[in-house]
Amino acid sequence: MKSLWRNSHDWRRLGWAVQRGKTIVQAPASLGSARGSSRPLRDEGSCVRKSQSRVVPRELYVSDARPGVPQVDRWRVCCTFHRRGYGSAPGDTQVYRDKRYAELKDADIMHFRQILGEKGVVTDRDDLDWANTDWMHKYRGHSQLLLRPQTTQQVSEILQYCHAGRLAVVPQGGNTGLVGGSVPVFDEVILNLGAMNKILSFDEASGILVCEAGCILETLDNYLKSRGHTMPLDLGAKGSCQIGGNVSTNAGGLRLLRYGSLHGNVLGLEVVLADGTVLDLLGTLRKDNTGYDLKQIFIGAEGTLGVVTKVSVLTPPKLASVNVGFLACEDYASCQKTFAEAKKQLGEILSAFEFLDRHSLEVVLKHLDGARDPLPDSKESFYLLVETTGSNQTHDKEKLDAFLESALEKELIKDGAVAQDISQAGSFWKIREGIAESTAKAGAVYKYDLALPLKDLYSLVEDMRERLRDSATVIGFGHMGDGNLHLSIVAPSYDDKFVSQIEPYVYERTAAVNGSVSAEHGLGFMKAKAIYYSKPPAAVQVMAGFKDLLDPNGILNPYKVLPIGREKLIQVVDAFENAVPLLLLWPTASVKTTKTFGTPNFEVTSFDQIRHRCRLSWT
Amino acid sequence: MKSLWRNSHDWRRLGWAVQRGKTIVQAPASLGSARGSSRPLRDEGSCVRKSQSRVVPRELYVSDARPGVPQVDRWRVCCTFHRRGYGSAPGDTQVYRDKRYAELKDADIMHFRQILGEKGVVTDRDDLDWANTDWMHKYRGHSQLLLRPQTTQQVSEILQYCHAGRLAVVPQGGNTGLVGGSVPVFDEVILNLGAMNKILSFDEASGILVCEAGCILETLDNYLKSRGHTMPLDLGAKGSCQIGGNVSTNAGGLRLLRYGSLHGNVLGLEVVLADGTVLDLLGTLRKDNTGYDLKQIFIGAEGTLGVVTKVSVLTPPKLASVNVGFLACEDYASCQKTFAEAKKQLGEILSAFEFLDRHSLEVVLKHLDGARDPLPDSKESFYLLVETTGSNQTHDKEKLDAFLESALEKELIKDGAVAQDISQAGSFWKIREGIAESTAKAGAVYKYDLALPLKDLYSLVEDMRERLRDSATVIGFGHMGDGNLHLSIVAPSYDDKFVSQIEPYVYERTAAVNGSVSAEHGLGFMKAKAIYYSKPPAAVQVMAGFKDLLDPNGILNPYKVLPIGREKLIQVVDAFENAVPLLLLWPTASVKTTKTFGTPNFEVTSFDQIRHRCRLSWT
Repeated sequence: MKSLWRNSHDWRRLGWAVQRGKTIVQAPASLGSARGSSRPLRDEGSCVRKSQSRVVPRELYVSDARPGVPQVDRWRVCCTFHRRGYGSAPGDTQVYRDKRYAELKDADIMHFRQILGEKGVVTDRDDLDWANTDWMHKYRGHSQLLLRPQTTQQVSEILQYCHAGRLAVVPQGGNTGLVGGSVPVFDEVILNLGAMNKILSFDEASGILVCEAGCILETLDNYLKSRGHTMPLDLGAKGSCQIGGNVSTNAGGLRLLRYGSLHGNVLGLEVVLADGTVLDLLGTLRKDNTGYDLKQIFIGAEGTLGVVTKVSVLTPPKLASVNVGFLACEDYASCQKTFAEAKKQLGEILSAFEFLDRHSLEVVLKHLDGARDPLPDSKESFYLLVETTGSNQTHDKEKLDAFLESALEKELIKDGAVAQDISQAGSFWKIREGIAESTAKAGAVYKYDLALPLKDLYSLVEDMRERLRDSATVIGFGHMGDGNLHLSIVAPSYDDKFVSQIEPYVYERTAAVNGSVSAEHGLGFMKAKAIYYSKPPAAVQVMAGFKDLLDPNGILNPYKVLPIGREKLIQVVDAFENAVPLLLLWPTASVKTTKTFGTPNFEVTSFDQIRHRCRLSWT
Repeated sequence: MKSLWRNSHDWRRLGWAVQRGKTIVQAPASLGSARGSSRPLRDEGSCVRKSQSRVVPRELYVSDARPGVPQVDRWRVCCTFHRRGYGSAPGDTQVYRDKRYAELKDADIMHFRQILGEKGVVTDRDDLDWANTDWMHKYRGHSQLLLRPQTTQQVSEILQYCHAGRLAVVPQGGNTGLVGGSVPVFDEVILNLGAMNKILSFDEASGILVCEAGCILETLDNYLKSRGHTMPLDLGAKGSCQIGGNVSTNAGGLRLLRYGSLHGNVLGLEVVLADGTVLDLLGTLRKDNTGYDLKQIFIGAEGTLGVVTKVSVLTPPKLASVNVGFLACEDYASCQKTFAEAKKQLGEILSAFEFLDRHSLEVVLKHLDGARDPLPDSKESFYLLVETTGSNQTHDKEKLDAFLESALEKELIKDGAVAQDISQAGSFWKIREGIAESTAKAGAVYKYDLALPLKDLYSLVEDMRERLRDSATVIGFGHMGDGNLHLSIVAPSYDDKFVSQIEPYVYERTAAVNGSVSAEHGLGFMKAKAIYYSKPPAAVQVMAGFKDLLDPNGILNPYKVLPIGREKLIQVVDAFENAVPLLLLWPTASVKTTKTFGTPNFEVTSFDQIRHRCRLSWT
């Protein structure tokens, strides 16, 4: 019996071969701005939006509106990734609509109108278009219904109804995700939380904010700013993204180095489970050790385990002093040492530690309007952007100067410049933030968002450069402080044959050093089957167990996060071989307690799981 | 049908009435020190150890060693709490041994010897005594076997065997817990992780430490100190407690205000599940959004969901500059405002913000040898201890001085003193740390460890003072920065009638403001049934679902955390009324999918759960 790890790679290769040569559809030039992003897009994902191709053959989605389109088309999504998206994998991403789910009926819509009134029920096709399409215009569902509840009670009633009637649901916040997690795959009902946007309380003494899930991140930050506080996270999409979505995707962003992840900053949640049960975990306490910390499992579950309706979050004080330095290093080892030194000397005021290689800088200087080399006399291999945030400008400047002096003295850095004003600081940030835009102008770009142990962060870039030699420019940059590498490969043109030199190698190399194939954007629909690169089968099985426990009918955000689609099924059927027919004749058996099947790390925990997967297979 | 909340209170009152007038057994004067705690005990729990009464009638535990003791005694634990422990509740804590669990046989011991060798299997009664008894000598099991695995593989083999044979297991670290979570209740096999004490890796650049679960906290901190880092948590029990236990209990401690909880600092875990499955979640990444963050559910699960065998933790740089100030405030509102001001002005260097009321200070000055009032000219109602930790002594002092000046100017504080050297800083801390010892000398003390919203933190103390009037001295102090109140009530003598004036009032008041009845020590055996004061029934049901999923035979740390004992059962039987007999005749039914029973928030999810509880009831 084959190892599951090997299996998952085999499919991907196989799928890729099958998909070659499909039609490509171009995306509009810029889509993100229409969504009201309030400032220049800063993180990699955001930048991608601007230059991303739309890759889904639209006729498959649009066709369902026309009478006479065969059912098989309506219920099938077939995506080819030629101009691939942000870290997207090649291969077969065909997914079939799960027939367990009911189709929407007029009676359902009438019921929802009773719960929400007219305004809360959207069925107009034009109005639905935005919600059916993801931020990058890469994924498009064809839901016929969007619901906008205003209270937790309404969310509960909606889910109770959908659970009973097996209507699939996509919870949706600001719809700014980059992995297709916030839009329907087929005809799932869209449950948009945007109308639940009240700030419920803020305690200035403790800095604890409680609000509804639909509050926009920037709105919250502005609200706090006037009260001397700030949100512990900041994203390029802050003008559109909602706190419920941030929590559900465990959004990382620019302040993670300083304030840590949402697992530490979220103090409480109110979550509505698939069956409508309201789970009140909305604590406002820094310390609470009474039972399992259930809220944690909903942070980053991408709406597949429950719908976050309220959030309690610890907000740090807003600090006035910000300094930015731009430094040059000879090699990657020096970057690592400089980071360690910065943590020691800048300790409590260090707020960002970004790195880029010479190739990145050159691409920016060549392609980005108005970009200037902050260190024109240095031609080093690596550059660092170091930011401090503190409460006292004089102190912070002194610390930064002392750190730079000591780093120069120890020859960790070769050169450096400190911004003297906001404009200079902006120009330093512009270089770091302008890489994505510049690479897009430079050629056909293949992008990967990976988390790696710090010591392995750059060797992957070097290996890739070695591997591809003269056929492409390989550049590496990212949030060094968080171990988050953005690997971009700039080739003269998009070419399937070329891709096979990159993938699955890049994922395998990431997996080999226990890295993550999705550092900060989640798995969504795009990477659900890539989970095995970063998580062992035993862990995925436990995740599936949590999913079955909390959402037994599987109505919440189906086809996302966990590989429970057709691909996973093939594994199960392979693993079970002749056992499945036997089990089908034995409908009340619990496999878990009678026998362990498959590879040592793989166990199917209940008959329902098998049956569920088999049904998918026979669709 | 009664509400579960009301039910849980009713039992407690009823139980309390039943238990009145039982024998009291005194504890030895000081026990903690024998465990090698490396410094003066600092937190409340630790201090309690010194003066705590032993409250369990010993004969019930000891008796099983003597031949001829009836089986009923051997399998029954009957605890009376007259001289009550740290936040202990009064009432009926009778728990019966669950007959689902097998009794240990010679063949089992032989099997474990095959796995672990002679050294890893401890059966000597004297050697077992330490591991059977908790730190406070309040709880004592009578396990006949302690296992000391050295590898994860051995832990896996042990659990696989215990799971198959339904042998109950208590995972044990340094055995420094204060709620009876780390010792057997009956004859559970003790799985002590102390021999798994290797540091596996440390990356100076990222500050990420990976080690085995049995590493002692202080050992890790010393190891890091020489490498310029520090552990993100610090406890009074650091000389004995183990990192696996810290993680399993989500230990809070003294650095939480600065570095946050373990949910933010633990980057990865290796956990062995009840059936021996090794769950490798030992990531060393700050960002990883691939699937549900499973490790979080084991942080604070007190060993009931899996056994933590390895830990990956993010460690902050060690900072050299420490300052301590002692301030006087007129009222509690000023304390709150001063905290907000400190967060603003000291922001990045604030590392502790403790408060104590005048009553606390007076008790210390009266009873603690060598204690001196740092502000003898001020007779204010409240005192604050403010600590800063940073990388630059000059800067930090300047910030602290500026903060104090502004706080004085705004009349937030009435007076203040800043320690000029380590000795003075120590004398300030001595007052805060000496409260527990002083109250113990002052009379009979009833202690409660609670987390409350900051605004409600002190009103509970005031209400209690009003309620008890002249019959006792009520003092309030604690970690204000974490919203953690230590409420101590000093009476002339211990008196059951007096207690009924305090409890359940103190828990009800805590619950009424969404507080936590266990801020930092978990529920363990002592508070398992108090969970409903801080968590709604729906949440406890989900917890029970997680427990059933991950440990279907319930072998891991039974009778702890969740109220699945006899008390809970009475609820279930009450709630189900006539439904239970019906279900007993219908053994394959899944209640969840057919009908929802009981109160609106309460649902029994499977027949097995009911049967399980009924069996307990009929024991």
